[in-house]
Amino acid sequence: MSDMNEEMQILFDNYTALMDGGQYLQLKQELNEEQPANIAEYFEELTAEKQLFIFRLLSKDVAAEVFSYMDNDTQEHIVQSITDREVRNIVDEMFLDDTVDFLEEAPANLVKKVLRNTDAGTRQLINRFLNYPENSAGSLMTIEFVRLRANMTVTKALSEIKRVGMDKETIYTCYVTDAQRKLLGVIPLRTLICAEDDSLVGDLMEDDVISVHTLDDQEEVANIFKKYNWMALPVTDTEGRLVGIITVDDIVDVIEQETTEDMELMNAVLPSDDEYLKMSVFALVKNRIPWLCVLMISGTLSAFVIGMYQSLLDSVVMLSSFMTIITGTGGNAGSQASAMVIRGLALGDIQMRDTFKVVFKELRVGILCGLILAMVNMIRMTFFDHSTPFNIDLTVSLSMGVAVVLAKTLGCILPILAKAVKLDPAMMAGPLISTVVDAIALVVYFSIATVLVL
Amino acid sequence: MSDMNEEMQILFDNYTALMDGGQYLQLKQELNEEQPANIAEYFEELTAEKQLFIFRLLSKDVAAEVFSYMDNDTQEHIVQSITDREVRNIVDEMFLDDTVDFLEEAPANLVKKVLRNTDAGTRQLINRFLNYPENSAGSLMTIEFVRLRANMTVTKALSEIKRVGMDKETIYTCYVTDAQRKLLGVIPLRTLICAEDDSLVGDLMEDDVISVHTLDDQEEVANIFKKYNWMALPVTDTEGRLVGIITVDDIVDVIEQETTEDMELMNAVLPSDDEYLKMSVFALVKNRIPWLCVLMISGTLSAFVIGMYQSLLDSVVMLSSFMTIITGTGGNAGSQASAMVIRGLALGDIQMRDTFKVVFKELRVGILCGLILAMVNMIRMTFFDHSTPFNIDLTVSLSMGVAVVLAKTLGCILPILAKAVKLDPAMMAGPLISTVVDAIALVVYFSIATVLVL
Repeated sequence: MSDMNEEMQILFDNYTALMDGGQYLQLKQELNEEQPANIAEYFEELTAEKQLFIFRLLSKDVAAEVFSYMDNDTQEHIVQSITDREVRNIVDEMFLDDTVDFLEEAPANLVKKVLRNTDAGTRQLINRFLNYPENSAGSLMTIEFVRLRANMTVTKALSEIKRVGMDKETIYTCYVTDAQRKLLGVIPLRTLICAEDDSLVGDLMEDDVISVHTLDDQEEVANIFKKYNWMALPVTDTEGRLVGIITVDDIVDVIEQETTEDMELMNAVLPSDDEYLKMSVFALVKNRIPWLCVLMISGTLSAFVIGMYQSLLDSVVMLSSFMTIITGTGGNAGSQASAMVIRGLALGDIQMRDTFKVVFKELRVGILCGLILAMVNMIRMTFFDHSTPFNIDLTVSLSMGVAVVLAKTLGCILPILAKAVKLDPAMMAGPLISTVVDAIALVVYFSIATVLVL
Repeated sequence: MSDMNEEMQILFDNYTALMDGGQYLQLKQELNEEQPANIAEYFEELTAEKQLFIFRLLSKDVAAEVFSYMDNDTQEHIVQSITDREVRNIVDEMFLDDTVDFLEEAPANLVKKVLRNTDAGTRQLINRFLNYPENSAGSLMTIEFVRLRANMTVTKALSEIKRVGMDKETIYTCYVTDAQRKLLGVIPLRTLICAEDDSLVGDLMEDDVISVHTLDDQEEVANIFKKYNWMALPVTDTEGRLVGIITVDDIVDVIEQETTEDMELMNAVLPSDDEYLKMSVFALVKNRIPWLCVLMISGTLSAFVIGMYQSLLDSVVMLSSFMTIITGTGGNAGSQASAMVIRGLALGDIQMRDTFKVVFKELRVGILCGLILAMVNMIRMTFFDHSTPFNIDLTVSLSMGVAVVLAKTLGCILPILAKAVKLDPAMMAGPLISTVVDAIALVVYFSIATVLVL
């Protein structure tokens, strides 16, 4: 597995060769034995027509699995092109949560096409799922789990698992419920396998179960998985009835998605679920222009500050040369602090009760960084750049030091404040911090200059 | 599970009450029934003395599991304080990879204490693990997996799993090897459970196995998990022999760690594995000051550009007011582009072969964003700020537009270039891009001003 991309390319070239050579039987056999995720990737390289051709070479169960790995565009094209009967086959074979994932993004006509090809029971379930808020535990969960009873023996439980196992998302964690579907306990398949045949499920199960509610946020769900290293988590409704489970492989996607959102927000981009290359130029502009405008207008504050000190600049034009180096360094120092605090808040390493500790820490870090930078700058300007008088060197160095301290402090406080008022801390990152720091750093710079230079 | 922190606090308060009340038997019982991850969290609230007391109330197997969830400081304190015999008990019960995780960070005297309390075989294994490079597949893997033979029947395989199951990291994916330990195939426990009793493992197993090498990077390993949604992945040595497996719960940690590193690097912080609150002020400064210095010195370029145009600024002092708004907007526009490209590269959504597509896209996004921002700024300066003449309004707006286009282009090219020369693309983010854009934007600004204003 030294280079995944290269291996994939060889695989795809082989398929294409078989297709072009008319060796359809061979192609069909190879496709149906390949990893579904790889075939889904192959679809992205094909024309619409060839996608359909290849799709029809897949056996029913493979087709459903490949479908669940495809991106939205390909899925939509396939559903659009195939017959009602083929739609029914896929939906029958797919896990419900994958069907729902597709329907959540699909245009109305395709949703209709899918729904009219499902039986009434499934249709009702799908509708219930579509009603769960986006990013809630309910929208993540699957209903294909193994349900056991407390009074079953291990032998009975294992034969039940054997009977239903192939249609379940996981059989490795089983759930014990009563007649009212209330969740009583959890039992890993490992416990069943290693137990005596005539032990009772009720005696073996873990009855102190941690579960989430259908409306809980996916970020909270992800945090539980990270803390306990579990493979699955039960989801209950308000009456404590078990309605679904969430498996760890979906959590990996949630973590990636939440992180991408944070990174976008931290760089003044409105978050989006779509892949970069799949987004149109207009979509990209739409996600970027709001913050660019807001920050640009806020940047007027700096222009205003500079305008206020026009007469100072007039008499010492040289001062203008060092404005950007001071604002830039301040902005960088602030970005560092805010990024670490934002990440700490997201990972749960930093809690609201740590506010004082964080601010005190950043204050000390700021003072130390400020001192070092001021000294480095002083040395640079004094010994390597003889064009400026000593009092300007001193003004620039001092302002830089103070700007760094202020930037570090602001950089750690703003994300925590944002969290306190239920805003996303990731908003309070580099771009916003820099814009605020710019104006403040300039006031500091000109104030010091007024004393030292004039 | 509405508020995990609150529930934990109630749990911890209960333990503390039992401890203070001397109800040790009750405390012992409750501790041994609780989730190990929660007890490990409780340790972080305790004094060193109480940590030891509580630890000794735990049964051997619970103690080992709780230990594996503790942070490094607590682990070190515990190992320091307990007897050799207790050390032996923990190491016996722990999975090898957890022992290795602890040893990797522990000071030499504790490593010695642990190693002298393990038998020769384990010691040899531990030493081999400690030699795998950090962040390699070898350093992530565990050796506690289930090994089957191709000629076993399902019944035989299941009884083998039952025999060894409790000591394995996972039993849900089993591995088939030959006498030379060469990996022949993979078989999920589900397949075994649902198969006929007298089928042969060799007929049921998946023989087209994707595996990784001990020296492969953990990021690559994580990408495979993300693509295939697997629960475990086999690790082979250079001779194709199966030496270990990696489970998905470790991958969740890898993903978090890689993301944190990217975020730190994207904000000009040298990456570190430690939690923010656990890092000393000096450690934080050490990770931040190098980039701050490099960027500050690079910022001299801007000062140089401004110095070059001193006579222009001299005659039109007003121009200095708008320098930061132009450099700021350019920096923000560049950060947006670089962040999305860096993330796309990390997730594999963007490949090297997409370079042209990306640049062409960002060029169009840049032109559109630049036009909009220039217009908004023109309107703002013309209608809401009457202090500047028309040719200055026009200069600022035009420069802003051009700066945005250049920033977007640079912002997407630099991360790709970095990747091409095997540097981490995350380095080419906001702070660095802004510093480069600052100088370029100023050249643009003063050049346009020379034409339009002078």
